[in-house]
Amino acid sequence: MEDNWKDWKKTKAFEKLRDLAQNPYDLTTPNALRERVAKYICRSHSFSLHYAGQRVDDSVLDCFQDLADECRLVEQFAGMRKGAVMNRIIGFESENRRVLHTACRDLFMESPREPVATRQAKKEIEKVRVFLEDLESGKLTNESGEAFTTFLHIGIGGSDLGPRCVFEALRSFGVKGRDVHFISNVDPDDAAAVLSRIDLARTLVCIVSKSGTTLETLANETLVRKALSEKGLDPALHCLAVTGEGSPMDDPGNYLRSFYMYDYIGGRYSSTSMVGIVMLGFYLGFEQVMGFLQGASKMDYEAENQKILENMPLLLAMLGIWNHNFLGFPTLAVLPYSQALHRFPAHLQQCDMESNGKSVTRNGEDVSYKTGPIVWGEPGTNGQHAFYQLLHQGTEIVPVEFIGFRRSQYGIDMEIDGTSLQLKLLANLQAQSLALATGQKSDNPNRRFPGNRPNSILLADRLTPETMGMLLALYEAKIVFQGFLWNINSFDQEGVQLGKALAGRFLGYMKGKSNIDDSLESEILQASKIE
Amino acid sequence: MEDNWKDWKKTKAFEKLRDLAQNPYDLTTPNALRERVAKYICRSHSFSLHYAGQRVDDSVLDCFQDLADECRLVEQFAGMRKGAVMNRIIGFESENRRVLHTACRDLFMESPREPVATRQAKKEIEKVRVFLEDLESGKLTNESGEAFTTFLHIGIGGSDLGPRCVFEALRSFGVKGRDVHFISNVDPDDAAAVLSRIDLARTLVCIVSKSGTTLETLANETLVRKALSEKGLDPALHCLAVTGEGSPMDDPGNYLRSFYMYDYIGGRYSSTSMVGIVMLGFYLGFEQVMGFLQGASKMDYEAENQKILENMPLLLAMLGIWNHNFLGFPTLAVLPYSQALHRFPAHLQQCDMESNGKSVTRNGEDVSYKTGPIVWGEPGTNGQHAFYQLLHQGTEIVPVEFIGFRRSQYGIDMEIDGTSLQLKLLANLQAQSLALATGQKSDNPNRRFPGNRPNSILLADRLTPETMGMLLALYEAKIVFQGFLWNINSFDQEGVQLGKALAGRFLGYMKGKSNIDDSLESEILQASKIE
Repeated sequence: MEDNWKDWKKTKAFEKLRDLAQNPYDLTTPNALRERVAKYICRSHSFSLHYAGQRVDDSVLDCFQDLADECRLVEQFAGMRKGAVMNRIIGFESENRRVLHTACRDLFMESPREPVATRQAKKEIEKVRVFLEDLESGKLTNESGEAFTTFLHIGIGGSDLGPRCVFEALRSFGVKGRDVHFISNVDPDDAAAVLSRIDLARTLVCIVSKSGTTLETLANETLVRKALSEKGLDPALHCLAVTGEGSPMDDPGNYLRSFYMYDYIGGRYSSTSMVGIVMLGFYLGFEQVMGFLQGASKMDYEAENQKILENMPLLLAMLGIWNHNFLGFPTLAVLPYSQALHRFPAHLQQCDMESNGKSVTRNGEDVSYKTGPIVWGEPGTNGQHAFYQLLHQGTEIVPVEFIGFRRSQYGIDMEIDGTSLQLKLLANLQAQSLALATGQKSDNPNRRFPGNRPNSILLADRLTPETMGMLLALYEAKIVFQGFLWNINSFDQEGVQLGKALAGRFLGYMKGKSNIDDSLESEILQASKIE
Repeated sequence: MEDNWKDWKKTKAFEKLRDLAQNPYDLTTPNALRERVAKYICRSHSFSLHYAGQRVDDSVLDCFQDLADECRLVEQFAGMRKGAVMNRIIGFESENRRVLHTACRDLFMESPREPVATRQAKKEIEKVRVFLEDLESGKLTNESGEAFTTFLHIGIGGSDLGPRCVFEALRSFGVKGRDVHFISNVDPDDAAAVLSRIDLARTLVCIVSKSGTTLETLANETLVRKALSEKGLDPALHCLAVTGEGSPMDDPGNYLRSFYMYDYIGGRYSSTSMVGIVMLGFYLGFEQVMGFLQGASKMDYEAENQKILENMPLLLAMLGIWNHNFLGFPTLAVLPYSQALHRFPAHLQQCDMESNGKSVTRNGEDVSYKTGPIVWGEPGTNGQHAFYQLLHQGTEIVPVEFIGFRRSQYGIDMEIDGTSLQLKLLANLQAQSLALATGQKSDNPNRRFPGNRPNSILLADRLTPETMGMLLALYEAKIVFQGFLWNINSFDQEGVQLGKALAGRFLGYMKGKSNIDDSLESEILQASKIE
């Protein structure tokens, strides 16, 4: 079926949406939000998506459904989950792979969507369970028989951003006495700073690279192994590997334990694979990790609902398309009102922009429309005292996806002036959403707020391992749906290759300093005084 | 002079730039960068700005100079430094203040630009010197006579982002045995997470709020004072205040020491005032803090150079205007190849977007052009494995400002495959810059890189207190120059007021739960199940 994608610009729904976009719902008229706030809510297991603040009405929502149907978005998603070869460009050399990150967490049904991949995932999870048990029982200790207290996770990109985001989000749920640190950047100061803060003797070092060849990760591994040796520690007794089976890193002699991931899992979708689960297992314990996976899996099943108003990832995807392609806004701000989610925007920058920052269709043709937006954000209320000025009164209009939770994680709070800090947080969240939508008139031109700045709020009771799993899978599915509609391959990343090749050339000139020629690269290095 | 700003759209240079923008320099033609890489460099004390990768040529640069001259940008900057009332909207109620953050660091000349403000700054710095001496000599200790080892900085927005960014940037320069933590968000989990990690008995708590009324900061102060009391500690013996003289927080009975800032220093420009200096003094020691201030001051003086090709902040400002207003790119990515600068983009999001995310001129008229761009970024090489896909092959074009350093901070490095990690970092930086500019042809459409993606590189030898001061002041001046050209007030933030007012309304409904009426706010709270 994959060879016959419908061009979304040739659908009736596209035409109609283009017409409707000429005169989108005006949120600034009196009572514009009345009745909508109770009506425009999409509910999933634990989250509700409040989208009254988007510039849509029932006609637009009907078109969303038609467009999703005509382009068979849910069908494609279901096909992906069953193992369709989605990662390819038809007629050209490409990765030609299946896309099965959802199989890693499809562990809770009698008949998973792709049983072979799920069986592989279960095998790795069992290895994690045994690993954690061995840590608990004292079977696995350092050279002196002491328990490992620190986990040093070394990876970059998908092997760093997603896992780090989830760790930060769930920091309050950790097993007592255990901590996690991360090294990612090839900047030697990254490793130096982390190594200055941890006790290597009690540290497990986990090196994460699917290919087993990632420059930054191998360089940092070498640096850390040297540091271990210099302290008289045996690297083979401290290092774990997460890598593809059969990769250059798949070498049990060098690692205490090895955990596998498979080529059907893309880096930016890999947090629920061994890439995230070994670290999270160490920090959260086995039971809570399973809760995280279960949350993600629940959201995957919800994404198979044909009815867009009940399918949160699909609805979020279409609202994004509406703002980006029809109303013309180039960026998307994701603003969590939860300090724990402070790295969620950075994870999304990879997951979204690496997936959908593309210019050719799955048939190798140039796209004639905008694809993925620029995604950015910081937590509220911090951002309110920073860039919100531009959101409210700037000349660039920024659609916003707010995220909030009714309860805090730690539960440590107090009443000040009659309300808790948590309620103050939520009041600010609601206030910003309302202010962006409705705006405000004033006789002082500098105090005018134009309003009509589209936004939605994603709400849940509390950020827990399970809701974090849902949130992660919600955005993964959203991104995938948008890629399907744009008819692009959301699973490759050819755009990173040129930089890699040129970096190799620069390194070549750096090595052969004495014999520098008159190439552009050497001219640049000389002009930059880099030697 | 402030009442008579030239409309930049009515200048000849504007017209000419608009024409030149129809056909900007093509970086993708063979040898397009040859000769430029050695020529298009602007040098300051420690930094060089390499802008061969921008789509400019000599004609464009000439127009930059003309535009800067016609709009008297340098003259306005010099006027600001001497105390002109720059923070106002003529004809309407506004803050009506001078803008003198530069005076805080104008400490090294016999005749500073604004002697009164500099005298005030010197007085506060002397208080910091004595404070540090008292910590050193043991005159200032905790209740048990132990030295304070931890500094807890409580502030939000400008009282958080800038200071935190500088602290992170200079973490490797800290006094042994001292550490700093931050609380900013009203999310109670922010404080809970930090308090779970520190030893309050040995902690100095510094509350930073110019007005002394910032909701988040006062709530967190209350929370932390309660935590101190619960541990049997006397808050008045642990708390420091940084606030405006005469603010509600200016109450020596409640604080161990008080440090003042003045209304002529805006929050987002306040890192070199007491807002940043008390914390940095504790962490870095007095001498290094003075180096930081000296760096900033040097850059301020450079910004007074009328010749744009020798005035780095002005040139950076005009390159940004070229990309944003003439070539039409809505965002700016700032990508430091230095892990230590990982919070620099977040600081800039405030400094830039809060300053220039405006829609009315200094005369209270609606602008007829784009003002401040959306600023975002993450450190390289991390970003290369994340959102760079979109930078290279996406449909949104993103101008980039790279930042790099020839040497690392810690100096802990090793050769792998013939080059150090630091050289690998620099090779990647150069490679990305080149790849974005020149692009690449290919028979495989998915492997084509369009190129012509404008970027520049800012280089220095090493990130130190002094170069960090320069970097901070460089971007402050850049932002101010852009605001002058757009003829907007870069020093107020009326856009944050509506959200504050609405938050108050929501809090009102939350407090009076039992008597909830049928207002929109209460309808929203009910639909959100917030109670």
